[in-house]
Amino acid sequence: MKLTKDQINQIKNQQSQNNQTKRATVPELEKILYEAVPALDHGFVRVIDYMGDDTSIVQAARVSYGKGTKKVSTDEGLIKYLMRHWHSTPFEMCEIKYHIKLPIFIARQWIRHRTANVNEYSARYSILDKEFYLPTTENLAAQSLNNRQGRGDVLEGDQAKEVLELLKNDAERTYNNYETMLNQRFDGSQIDESKKGLARELARMNLTLNTYTQWYWKTDLLNLMNFLRLRADSHAQYEIRVYADIMLDTLKRWTPITYDAFMDYRVGGTEVSAKGKIIIEKLIKREDVNIENSGLSKREWNELMEAFKLNDRII
Amino acid sequence: MKLTKDQINQIKNQQSQNNQTKRATVPELEKILYEAVPALDHGFVRVIDYMGDDTSIVQAARVSYGKGTKKVSTDEGLIKYLMRHWHSTPFEMCEIKYHIKLPIFIARQWIRHRTANVNEYSARYSILDKEFYLPTTENLAAQSLNNRQGRGDVLEGDQAKEVLELLKNDAERTYNNYETMLNQRFDGSQIDESKKGLARELARMNLTLNTYTQWYWKTDLLNLMNFLRLRADSHAQYEIRVYADIMLDTLKRWTPITYDAFMDYRVGGTEVSAKGKIIIEKLIKREDVNIENSGLSKREWNELMEAFKLNDRII
Amino acid sequence: MKLTKDQINQIKNQQSQNNQTKRATVPELEKILYEAVPALDHGFVRVIDYMGDDTSIVQAARVSYGKGTKKVSTDEGLIKYLMRHWHSTPFEMCEIKYHIKLPIFIARQWIRHRTANVNEYSARYSILDKEFYLPTTENLAAQSLNNRQGRGDVLEGDQAKEVLELLKNDAERTYNNYETMLNQRFDGSQIDESKKGLARELARMNLTLNTYTQWYWKTDLLNLMNFLRLRADSHAQYEIRVYADIMLDTLKRWTPITYDAFMDYRVGGTEVSAKGKIIIEKLIKREDVNIENSGLSKREWNELMEAFKLNDRII
Amino acid sequence: MKLTKDQINQIKNQQSQNNQTKRATVPELEKILYEAVPALDHGFVRVIDYMGDDTSIVQAARVSYGKGTKKVSTDEGLIKYLMRHWHSTPFEMCEIKYHIKLPIFIARQWIRHRTANVNEYSARYSILDKEFYLPTTENLAAQSLNNRQGRGDVLEGDQAKEVLELLKNDAERTYNNYETMLNQRFDGSQIDESKKGLARELARMNLTLNTYTQWYWKTDLLNLMNFLRLRADSHAQYEIRVYADIMLDTLKRWTPITYDAFMDYRVGGTEVSAKGKIIIEKLIKREDVNIENSGLSKREWNELMEAFKLNDRII
Repeated sequence: MKLTKDQINQIKNQQSQNNQTKRATVPELEKILYEAVPALDHGFVRVIDYMGDDTSIVQAARVSYGKGTKKVSTDEGLIKYLMRHWHSTPFEMCEIKYHIKLPIFIARQWIRHRTANVNEYSARYSILDKEFYLPTTENLAAQSLNNRQGRGDVLEGDQAKEVLELLKNDAERTYNNYETMLNQRFDGSQIDESKKGLARELARMNLTLNTYTQWYWKTDLLNLMNFLRLRADSHAQYEIRVYADIMLDTLKRWTPITYDAFMDYRVGGTEVSAKGKIIIEKLIKREDVNIENSGLSKREWNELMEAFKLNDRII
Repeated sequence: MKLTKDQINQIKNQQSQNNQTKRATVPELEKILYEAVPALDHGFVRVIDYMGDDTSIVQAARVSYGKGTKKVSTDEGLIKYLMRHWHSTPFEMCEIKYHIKLPIFIARQWIRHRTANVNEYSARYSILDKEFYLPTTENLAAQSLNNRQGRGDVLEGDQAKEVLELLKNDAERTYNNYETMLNQRFDGSQIDESKKGLARELARMNLTLNTYTQWYWKTDLLNLMNFLRLRADSHAQYEIRVYADIMLDTLKRWTPITYDAFMDYRVGGTEVSAKGKIIIEKLIKREDVNIENSGLSKREWNELMEAFKLNDRII
Repeated sequence: MKLTKDQINQIKNQQSQNNQTKRATVPELEKILYEAVPALDHGFVRVIDYMGDDTSIVQAARVSYGKGTKKVSTDEGLIKYLMRHWHSTPFEMCEIKYHIKLPIFIARQWIRHRTANVNEYSARYSILDKEFYLPTTENLAAQSLNNRQGRGDVLEGDQAKEVLELLKNDAERTYNNYETMLNQRFDGSQIDESKKGLARELARMNLTLNTYTQWYWKTDLLNLMNFLRLRADSHAQYEIRVYADIMLDTLKRWTPITYDAFMDYRVGGTEVSAKGKIIIEKLIKREDVNIENSGLSKREWNELMEAFKLNDRII
Repeated sequence: MKLTKDQINQIKNQQSQNNQTKRATVPELEKILYEAVPALDHGFVRVIDYMGDDTSIVQAARVSYGKGTKKVSTDEGLIKYLMRHWHSTPFEMCEIKYHIKLPIFIARQWIRHRTANVNEYSARYSILDKEFYLPTTENLAAQSLNNRQGRGDVLEGDQAKEVLELLKNDAERTYNNYETMLNQRFDGSQIDESKKGLARELARMNLTLNTYTQWYWKTDLLNLMNFLRLRADSHAQYEIRVYADIMLDTLKRWTPITYDAFMDYRVGGTEVSAKGKIIIEKLIKREDVNIENSGLSKREWNELMEAFKLNDRII
């Protein structure tokens, strides 16, 4: 990631602010406020604003449940209770705003989470930067034959090289033609004074999906966790997981108690179905249980055994 | 409005905070942060947190529209442009959180605005305060015969007195019976040791709809304006308008430029239909126009004439 | 529940419709379409419209995952897979609309689910029916001392009778005074020609929270299941559970495959935290585990043991 | 637009259904149900399900406003009233589901409307078709110098030809390289048995933004109108307007009364600010008014004059 001079100055200016406030403030998060944490080859994640902290969640829950919550003596105990029992509204009382730079094909995955506010850089009005994502050789992966949804064997050697060449050349060529059609370069300078330029809203269609875009993305803590649960998961695409992992770090700085409860109950936890519960119960009670009498499909059976590290029972 | 000792102390504590932050901060709003502004006879409005300011809107818009917005030189010009053209996402970048105390029948109207986060004091778990709304004599109004949706002639004299007596007595009696059923007073003390108490979740059903409740209510700036446009309007019920008016004041402190644009384009503005446009055009051009050839109903015609203060044309 | 003549006729009319359509149609649901299924003493649940069926979910999933889903051969297999892995969007493709009559204090709980469309009977414009909820003697319950959130020992004998008297008398008195203030009866007839009436929007505040209201409530299948998971749960208040149970039946008629998966994975299932997983693993592997070395609180420990019916390990 | 054999058969099958239902049914919409209406060069719009009609709106409004609405005698009068006064919830009672095929850069604009349910064809799991959007020569437009947000002078002759060549060649080359990287063709056949293939989730990044995608898109009538107001507007990008215009036709078939009100009050209407109202009032009353004493910017002034076709006053 290379920031422009303008960007570096803007970040410096923002970080040099020193305001007095009566609002809840989180020193650990303030330390990295506005900072551009690198993601992939040209992307970044910046926390640019936030509202509330762990205490705000507790405060909201205590208003809701009134004197009833007084018996849970600590903030930590209460937050764990809320997380365990899927109480959602207290976590909605905190809000965070990110500035993210990311490849378009990842942005398209990301935007499916509709419960956030978004302001994206518009290629209808502005010229996009000449920056596109290229995977590292390690990440170029052959799609395995038995799992068409992820990556399997790593593409190596000449074939990896070849793929990277194709990606690079196509992105560069299409970007150059984008400029040609616009009759303009990114800095706004005209290319050929005797020619007209194509409208930006049309020319952009020539760009490839690994071109970088950027947006402001604002969400409440509950929906941030919903996002992270899906996108920091091992089944998520690597490229979005890179962002989710960075955001998990910001969550830890921002609301450390909530972060711990989230890691324990959501990220590290598992769901067991009604049928699965009976199997676990029988396993503990040393009763006879096997896939045939379980009512589970092979896939379900294996997912259950994996969740509890019963590797010798995986079929 | 009378605050309890506990509440007064809590507000003092909150207001005595003095934190350093790099976040956008609004001194005018900080001045009243946490303060309980009285509403109706026992209610209040408190701003208890916020995120962003006018600048955050401008910043988000400039990310979106990129270099394209550079031609609108001032922040004010840009915010007015956004408001005029119904650009919504930049206004979603700011967030505010209120603590509100209000009668239940107003809470039921309020909650229909679904795009907010709410934590309400739960009468399932806690005993509600013995506080209920009683209108002032001025506000006791007879429903006019030709407008069944609002209030018409003011109820006066003996009849007003009688209504107030009924409201007061019924609220007090049902509250006392609420305590009797709970076998408990608000402070938690038992009434009759030889008796059991009814569950709170059931006993609450005996309370009248003017009993006060309270909640934390958090929303973004766009949805706050949507709420205020409807609820600060002269057609809104008086009791919710009281809250909306106080919140308009907090909006003015928080984002003064947005507030001005909002008052000009939304609150003070009007919509003209396709048919209405033709009539206005003709009126300006001194062409013949009357309700018969207008295609408007009498009601529509009058609404249009009123909007432009053409009182002599109202039928 | 007693329907008025008007209501009975309206239902008959609606049920006598016989339209031709190319849309997905569910005969099992059509059988009860428009029917008022009784709930509590005066309430009801009516399915009045729907869109889509189990097939619509499968169809949407196959568009999403394309050729990838062809390997899951059956509709049932695919729907179970979607449910197990929290895929949400295919379930959003079905929609259902209910007409519900319910006490106001339950409506207030219900409305907290914001992801639905609601049109409620407005007491601002119309006079509410003289109908209010009274629990049966069996349901009058004393709040247990160790669980302030639910009901414990059942209130019996004279005390139960007394509570019911209080509820009944207060509801009737406040309703009568509501009419007095309006100077009008429910049927619209004036009470005293020499008097003015109070506006409906004000008079309603005198009603108690067990007064019945009604609304149209429309939601998609995903959010219906989110609602039912919380409200058909044994921890939900009895009065809302009555409605949720009826709606579970309508779900079974509408989308029977989804219903089965929902009962298995959500309603009958459980969540196990990261720490809990280790304990279960150890229990199965006969390793030493107890509450001290578990890292769980007593409450968490007991919840875990209960989930797997390990009753002898509950502390 | 050319449909595959499979698609043609699927549509035939869907259209041959003939189910009996008691639900509200709209014969005019049934006529085109499932039909693929062509949009741009390879896209289409298909209505594949719906719920409710004009009557459903009226019914919901009458539940809400109760006896109060009886005075508005006709359905048309009531729907117009609801539209004029921004009553939103009755319009949420109807739902429609589309199957849309559209270029990715348009899908990215479209998805910003978050209040809809979406299931998009996933290039993570499946191979995209070799279809990409190419504008017609008429639509290739040079971006005007004074309006960087739209298109100005039409690119003509050789330059237009050149741009079309670039778009076509780049889309074809990147698609071919996409297949090469996958080591697979769209039909699933392997290209080179001695080679591995890149994961689909990665290979897709090489495609250009004019590649076609498809999705199921479901929304309620209120949000459909919000979408159409913005996207059928003359300021919307041509390529999305093509879709919006087709959808306007489906709206007309589905809910003709609502359609008329929508065209009159929203699409054909205009907003006038508080300051603007004074100017219009003065113009009608022949009072002195000009841009200097109006308080409007030049841009605002011109927009106002344009709205009422006062062309000779445009500056």
